[in-house]
Amino acid sequence: MRLIFLGFGTVGQGLAELLLAKKTMLAKEYGFKPIVVGIADMLKGNVYNPQGINLKKALELVKADKPLSKLLGKTIEGDALAFIKQTKADVLLEATYTDVKTGEPATSHCRAALNKKMHVVTTNKGPVALNYRPLQRLAHSKKVKFLFEGTVVSGTPMINLIRDTLAGSEIREIKGILNGTTNYILTKMEEGMTYESALAKAQELGYAEAVPDADVLGWDALAKVTILANVFFNATAKPFDYPCDGITKITPEAIAEAKKAGQRYKLIGRIWREEGKVKAAVAPQKVDLTHPLAGVSGATNAVTITSDTLGDVTIVGPGAGRRETGFSMLIDLLHLGGKR
Amino acid sequence: MRLIFLGFGTVGQGLAELLLAKKTMLAKEYGFKPIVVGIADMLKGNVYNPQGINLKKALELVKADKPLSKLLGKTIEGDALAFIKQTKADVLLEATYTDVKTGEPATSHCRAALNKKMHVVTTNKGPVALNYRPLQRLAHSKKVKFLFEGTVVSGTPMINLIRDTLAGSEIREIKGILNGTTNYILTKMEEGMTYESALAKAQELGYAEAVPDADVLGWDALAKVTILANVFFNATAKPFDYPCDGITKITPEAIAEAKKAGQRYKLIGRIWREEGKVKAAVAPQKVDLTHPLAGVSGATNAVTITSDTLGDVTIVGPGAGRRETGFSMLIDLLHLGGKR
Repeated sequence: MRLIFLGFGTVGQGLAELLLAKKTMLAKEYGFKPIVVGIADMLKGNVYNPQGINLKKALELVKADKPLSKLLGKTIEGDALAFIKQTKADVLLEATYTDVKTGEPATSHCRAALNKKMHVVTTNKGPVALNYRPLQRLAHSKKVKFLFEGTVVSGTPMINLIRDTLAGSEIREIKGILNGTTNYILTKMEEGMTYESALAKAQELGYAEAVPDADVLGWDALAKVTILANVFFNATAKPFDYPCDGITKITPEAIAEAKKAGQRYKLIGRIWREEGKVKAAVAPQKVDLTHPLAGVSGATNAVTITSDTLGDVTIVGPGAGRRETGFSMLIDLLHLGGKR
Repeated sequence: MRLIFLGFGTVGQGLAELLLAKKTMLAKEYGFKPIVVGIADMLKGNVYNPQGINLKKALELVKADKPLSKLLGKTIEGDALAFIKQTKADVLLEATYTDVKTGEPATSHCRAALNKKMHVVTTNKGPVALNYRPLQRLAHSKKVKFLFEGTVVSGTPMINLIRDTLAGSEIREIKGILNGTTNYILTKMEEGMTYESALAKAQELGYAEAVPDADVLGWDALAKVTILANVFFNATAKPFDYPCDGITKITPEAIAEAKKAGQRYKLIGRIWREEGKVKAAVAPQKVDLTHPLAGVSGATNAVTITSDTLGDVTIVGPGAGRRETGFSMLIDLLHLGGKR
């Protein structure tokens, strides 16, 4: 299985590290022996070598801030699309930056690869939130797979959980804490911090960006909710089709009052059916302390999946992280190429 | 795919109901079209028909307390082993009664079926707790599968979760609330009930048996711990190789004291590595209220899986139930015969 990395930032490097560290085990236990034939990154340059790239050296180069073109192989002129068009591989690992408004250029990358009969594994919310159905159809017509475990709570493999472990079940509702940053802020506010200082602390720890809108206004959770609605509820929605409210209007007083009533504020993304229609929303909600979601504190994610077969099953895990998101790509790769 | 049900009690009937209710969907979405060719039950009699048995009628008969021999087909003389030997099928669904001390007669049923190159799907803890490795080896040599999702917290598909969704991860520790009955009793005791009245209530609700030893002394949790140790930690243990303590010695005073300290008593089954050795134990433990396991109340199960890739992932779900345990067999069947 020949792989191409598109985007070699935290996520791509996280996967590369796992592939190196687990090489022997993956070959032995899963018969999985991938070769990386290309890496292309907007900032770090690119390299293509059909004989295989030295992945260890690639990681050393990017850590030393040196261009990938120093590796054995050839450099492709042009942008990422040109790279896909001029190279050959079995899987495109799409981990370029996310634009939830346009889904580009990531959607074009996925489309170009699928058109070349390459499987696509992506951690990029844009293409899946905005163009899931056409991309899925294209993959199907080319007899390849379009996989995206890393797009929703990437440290907790819930897409594979629903697909494989709950196979045969009818999914009735999904609701959860889909954004670790806002959950961290709410946890700190319940401990007595103001919104402003909790946000500052989250920024200091690297959980929140300098411009924190995507997290605190609920857009990141909304993109994930849209992906889940499209994938598991057969919806054809775009992110801003659904109502979305963030955490910026929650006051310390409201949090204290909820606490007195045995409840806790959580930013909840929810998808459910009502009178035959798929509904979805992101909004702060008061959750009873007895519900498994209430106990989820800090930058952790959790999702409760309600099905006809098992009722409520809740999965709690890390929200993101270099190794965790890298693993979300590895699990998709194993589903493509590992014997199990 | 031809199926034989061995044992047609709650679990077998739960699966039969699911197969009937989901027939169209399973065929359409998974290409899964099983035929039930045999049912044998110690109390309800048996029937074998290579052309297929009317499953709906079988359910009606057992509900009306009538023998299965009334169905179209032939009756096999002798015990369950004779039934396996004289019939032909692709999968044996082993759901006879569990004996955690000897693992019999279930182990012999599994062995006989595997020897005939039948896959085995079981919810029976006995064979897996006592004879996992020889049965797995036998299955491997016959090129068939030995699957047992329903043996550990059957309403929460954690074996498939670890195998599929965490594939490629190194499992470092598993700990959890593996017995719903004792968790229900502890929850009620924390609410102020005595042990005796909480147990009586659990018996009234059908959670606990008249002789509650297997639950309250921790043996049921111990069997599950042994299965997890053998399957995921490569141990070769039998249940009573590990220390086991139940909930009978926990006083209301101890529970109140833990509560004051921000902790909660849970009966925890745990498997971990220490100095290269696999350790396991069942014992009541005080869990911090901030841990996801602390929030799990009532007859619910929960397991925290610690891996090198994701750190802690916790899954919370129902402990058992007719439909839930039936589903645990369905998910194993889909892994055998469904395209995914």
